[in-house]
Formats: sequence, C-alpha cells, structure tokens
Amino acid sequence: MDRVYNFSAGPSMLPLEVLQKAQSELLNYGGTGCSVLEMSHRSKPFEAIAQNAEATLRRIMRIPDDYAVLFLQGGASTQFSMVPMNLAPRGGTTAYAVTGQFAKKAWEEAQRWGNAVAVTNGKADDFAAIPDITPDILPQDAAYLHITGNNTVYGTAYNTLPETGDVPLVADWSSGILGKVIDVEKHALIYAGAQKNMGPAGLTVVIVKKALLNNEIDPIVPTMLRYNIHAEKDSMYNTPPCFAIYMAGLVFDWIEKNGGVEAMEERNTARANALYNALEQCNHFRPLAASKDRSIMNVTFTLDTPEMTAEFLAMAQRRGMISLKGYRTVGGCRASLYNGMPDEGVAALIDCICAFEIGKRT
Amino acid sequence: MDRVYNFSAGPSMLPLEVLQKAQSELLNYGGTGCSVLEMSHRSKPFEAIAQNAEATLRRIMRIPDDYAVLFLQGGASTQFSMVPMNLAPRGGTTAYAVTGQFAKKAWEEAQRWGNAVAVTNGKADDFAAIPDITPDILPQDAAYLHITGNNTVYGTAYNTLPETGDVPLVADWSSGILGKVIDVEKHALIYAGAQKNMGPAGLTVVIVKKALLNNEIDPIVPTMLRYNIHAEKDSMYNTPPCFAIYMAGLVFDWIEKNGGVEAMEERNTARANALYNALEQCNHFRPLAASKDRSIMNVTFTLDTPEMTAEFLAMAQRRGMISLKGYRTVGGCRASLYNGMPDEGVAALIDCICAFEIGKRT
Repeated sequence: MDRVYNFSAGPSMLPLEVLQKAQSELLNYGGTGCSVLEMSHRSKPFEAIAQNAEATLRRIMRIPDDYAVLFLQGGASTQFSMVPMNLAPRGGTTAYAVTGQFAKKAWEEAQRWGNAVAVTNGKADDFAAIPDITPDILPQDAAYLHITGNNTVYGTAYNTLPETGDVPLVADWSSGILGKVIDVEKHALIYAGAQKNMGPAGLTVVIVKKALLNNEIDPIVPTMLRYNIHAEKDSMYNTPPCFAIYMAGLVFDWIEKNGGVEAMEERNTARANALYNALEQCNHFRPLAASKDRSIMNVTFTLDTPEMTAEFLAMAQRRGMISLKGYRTVGGCRASLYNGMPDEGVAALIDCICAFEIGKRT
Repeated sequence: MDRVYNFSAGPSMLPLEVLQKAQSELLNYGGTGCSVLEMSHRSKPFEAIAQNAEATLRRIMRIPDDYAVLFLQGGASTQFSMVPMNLAPRGGTTAYAVTGQFAKKAWEEAQRWGNAVAVTNGKADDFAAIPDITPDILPQDAAYLHITGNNTVYGTAYNTLPETGDVPLVADWSSGILGKVIDVEKHALIYAGAQKNMGPAGLTVVIVKKALLNNEIDPIVPTMLRYNIHAEKDSMYNTPPCFAIYMAGLVFDWIEKNGGVEAMEERNTARANALYNALEQCNHFRPLAASKDRSIMNVTFTLDTPEMTAEFLAMAQRRGMISLKGYRTVGGCRASLYNGMPDEGVAALIDCICAFEIGKRT
C-alpha cells in the first residue's frame, strides 16, 4: 500500500520530505557515525540539533527574547499540573474557560492545587461554540486565565484571543500551534504537545515569559515539574526526548522553507474553508462547530445517522483515507488537517464527500 | 565516516539490525501506509506495537502477572517523585541507599514529600563501593528502601540484592535493566529510563506490583504522576511516546532472538571482565570501582594524570571510539558497554588501551 491520507487528530501526518530526511540519516547523522536515536544528549552534535530547533522555532513564531522556550516530556496532560504549580500559590485562585474535553481536564487538574474557577462552561451547548470572555467575568485575584486555543475534539478555536485585562493569559495551543499565527506576546505562557503540527509524540513545547520564572515555588512541587529548573538547564536537566526534538527541528525547517507560519495559516485556512463549504453544500453532511468559532485544524462533522456515518467512513477508508472517525464522546467524523497533510489529501476527502452525497441523491 | 563505537552512558548504541529495521519501515510501517512517527496511538497497528512490546518484555524479564508494566515519560528523574508520592503517605518515612549521583538525587527529591532517610551514604568513599544493607539498619516504618541498582556515574552495581526483611525494595535499574538478569519478584517496583539498554531517550519503563496500585493517593498528586491511572489505561491515559515504545519493542525482539537476557548477561560479563583484566594488567590505567561491586555495564577507570587521560581519549577518538570521557564530577574515563555495543567495539577499546600502555612503556 502507498502512503495513506491520515486524518488523525494526533499523532498525525508529517511532511513526507521530513520523513525522508530522517530516514536517510537514521544510521549515521551528519557524518557523526551514529544515529540521533543513540547520541548522547550532552554531545556537540545533539546540542547543535536542540539549539537549531529552538532558534528556528523562535524565528517562525517570532518569539521575543523575554520568553523562554522549553522542550519537555509528558504531554499537555502534564502541563495541566505544571501551570498551576508554577504560576499560582498553593490554594490560590486561577480561572479556566471550559470549552471542551481537554479544557475540562486542565480545569479539574488545577483543582488539585487550588481554587480553579470555571469562568465559562460550554458543556450545555455541546461545546459547539466559544463563549465570549471579557475582563469583568474573571476573578480579579486569578493568577491567570487558561484557555484551550484549539479544541481538537469539538473542532472549535479561538479565532480571536479573549481580552483578559490584567489577568495573564495561558493557552494550550497543542492543536493550533504552527498551523496559524499566534501572537506570543499576548500570552504569559503557551504550551503544546508536539504530535499535531510539530513532530512525533513524546515532546511538549512550552513558551513562557521569563519574568514568570522568578515566582517562588512551593517546596512540594517535584523538580521535574518546575519551569525554572528546565529553563536554567536549557531543557537538559535530565535526558530530553532527543529524537522527538530532532524531528521537530526538521519540521520547523520545513515550515520555514515553505513560507513560515503565515504561509501555513493561509494554506490551512483555504483548505479548511473548501472543506466546510463542501459540507454545507451537501444534504447529508453537517459541520458541528458554530461558524464563527470553527477550527481550521480539526473539522468536525456528522451525517444523517450513525449508520450513514459508518458507511461514509468505510468508503473513505477504501479510498486510502484513515482516522476520520470522530472522538468517542462526540461521534460523527473529524478531519484533522495539520500542516503535514498534503493538499491532495484534502482534495481527496472533498471528492469522497461529494461522491457519497451524489450516491445518496440518485 | 562509518559507524563509530559510541561508549556513551546514555543515550547509547542501538543494535545495527534494529536501526536498519526502523529505517526500512520509516515511511510505511507494515503496509499501513504511514510511519510509526505519525500513527494515532489509538489505532489498531499502534495498539499491537505497544502490546507486543509489553508481552516481549514480560517474557524476556520473566515478569509475573501480578506486576503491571507501564510505558511512561519523564525519565528516572520523574520517578524520583512518583515513587514516594505513590508508595508513601505525605510526610511518611522512606529509606534511601545513597550510592551515587542519581541515588542522591532520588533521595533529595523524596525529601520534598516526606521523611526520606539515607540509610547508607558512600560519598566519603567517593562512591567506589556499595555499602552493605541489612534489615536492622532500615527504619521499620519505611514505606520502602530505594536503591540505584547500577550506578552509571561511578561504575558500581548491586551484584547481589540487599536483604530488606519486610521493607519493600524499589530499584532504579536504568543502566542495568536487560543487561543482566534481574529477579523482578524481589522488588516491589523497578523503574528504568530506556536510553541505555532498551531504546531511545523519551521512554521510562515501570514494573510495579499490582497490589501497590491500591494505595490511597494524596489528592495533591498530579494525575500524570499516578501509577494507578497509567495502569488502568494501559499506559494510554494520554498520548504515549509512540516511536520510543516501538523502538524499545524492536530491541526487546532483538534480545529475545539473541538468547534473552540470560545470554546478554553472559556476554556482558565476559566482555566487562576482559576489559577490567586489561586495565589491571596496565601500569597507567586503574579501574575506579571496588572489585566486588563492579558494574558490567559502565566500566570507570582513570590514567595517571588528567593529561594522560586526555591523550588516551584523543587516541581512542582517532580510532573511532567516542563518548569515553568520565562523568564531569568524576573525571577519568567511562566505557558503557550496553547490549547495543558490538563485541568488536569492546575489542577495539582493549586494543587501544594496550597500544597506549605499550607506547608509554617504550
């Protein structure tokens, strides 16, 4: 079988060129005589890999110098604990916008640490839209407001950042980062699992305002969950996930070579719109997210019945398109169109939707 | 340059066959049409990869059914916190044998959680030997005794497990696991970073007696730091480090095909002994660890002077041997002879030692 179009919400497709480069140097990286999979993280070649990855990420995201960039492990789920443990005193107040599955998990986890207040909760509404946030609904003693920038499960996103007044903004941008331009300076902290737009699973990127690293941290917080330790040690306090950092570096290079994040956003917007348009022109398909809050990364939709959804998924699979099934609590379909998805994949999906619709009409 | 002999203490050499297999299927794993680097962790092919990796590890280590096997992230350093947080009440007593750099870190980290008592401390002795442990030196209310099975930095190891009476034994076997036979049933919990004998960095394996998963856990402990959550979810509570698990699975297969851990131990013992013998026959080289406590994985030694050490390291490098420099706090040399190191690498090192010695004599 040739390569399939993999619409998985993450881990997800990587650019073919990136995979080919990794394959070509898998036994011997840059003439060092060993694989990146085997290389000491304290060796000069690996230090250069990590430094270049950070430098490229800083350029393509325009990350200012007063922000630290950390390469960590444990996924966004570990950040759900690190954020309150590092940014709020134990028992202190924090604010959460509960706009989906992972936003809810982040909020629940913060409750282990302190008084985490849900300032919005879209559950009643099936999380189909992003509620408005204004400074007056935020507790004024909140250490931060936490948002999930792009809700992978529900296919919604903050297409405009909320106004938070003096309350620092913290965002989980796991499924949005590098797929669209994010204004870093509007955030106190951004975190993201790599396995959507950045690279393979096993790497978490944190971008944090350096001023926040001076906070006094409660002694009970594990060393490995302290941003300041990782920042002081340039993400080498312990052995980092070397190969995932290397792969992410290759992806960052690929993005830069292909016009940067601005070009990614343009391309992603165009093809997500093409897909949403196709869905809206069909009788048997229906997008799930409110128009103004639609994600350009995760397009959620459903068909008339679960049976019809299953039939469509089977047809797509026969045409070489996989992982289109919606999240288990949502049902329907979800097409994740991260940077690594070729345009041909989106075109093939639209084709398949049209063919299915026509088949049902005749 | 051809492949070098990489004596790094970790990340470290992987068997060439394993790298070649990974390379051959990097763009398209088993006819799925995608790379393991891109595959959803919830997909059937990846579930099979993870299940097979666990099953093979259980076979080669003879792990009984009443132990859970977890594939986690964060390295041994994260285990330094997880162990006390899961096995001891907050403020409770735990016992630590401080036999080296990482043993000390584990002990210090446990002090964040409770009363962590150092029952032995080899610092005065430069950590050159493993002090004896008998049940009478252990606090009888200790939730466990923690040992570092193999001390990577100092080149020492527990060649016999300590007698702990009723106190459960917890061991960091990061640099010993799969390099020698470990009697799992004598342990309550074993953990190990993968980047020595198991695979690339970014994966931590935990083997824990299931009965310990019923402990009540303090609410402040982050969900991601709870063994019971990871066990309930078969290590898929969140996105696991998929590619590192896949690579470890390939290494487990390779070990099984090559006679299992018993055969690894036999080979590792023979070649470590050959190296120690060579060092002892030389005037200008001196092994650092006490004979009875020598590690078969990490052979530490020094030469007459730092200048002579530097000269030897340069000679080895010219002969295609890298990462032989000792840990920064110890100096001298360290040869890590993990499973992935070919016999030819050890022979080349012994050759180089002899040639250097002869050069100095004449």
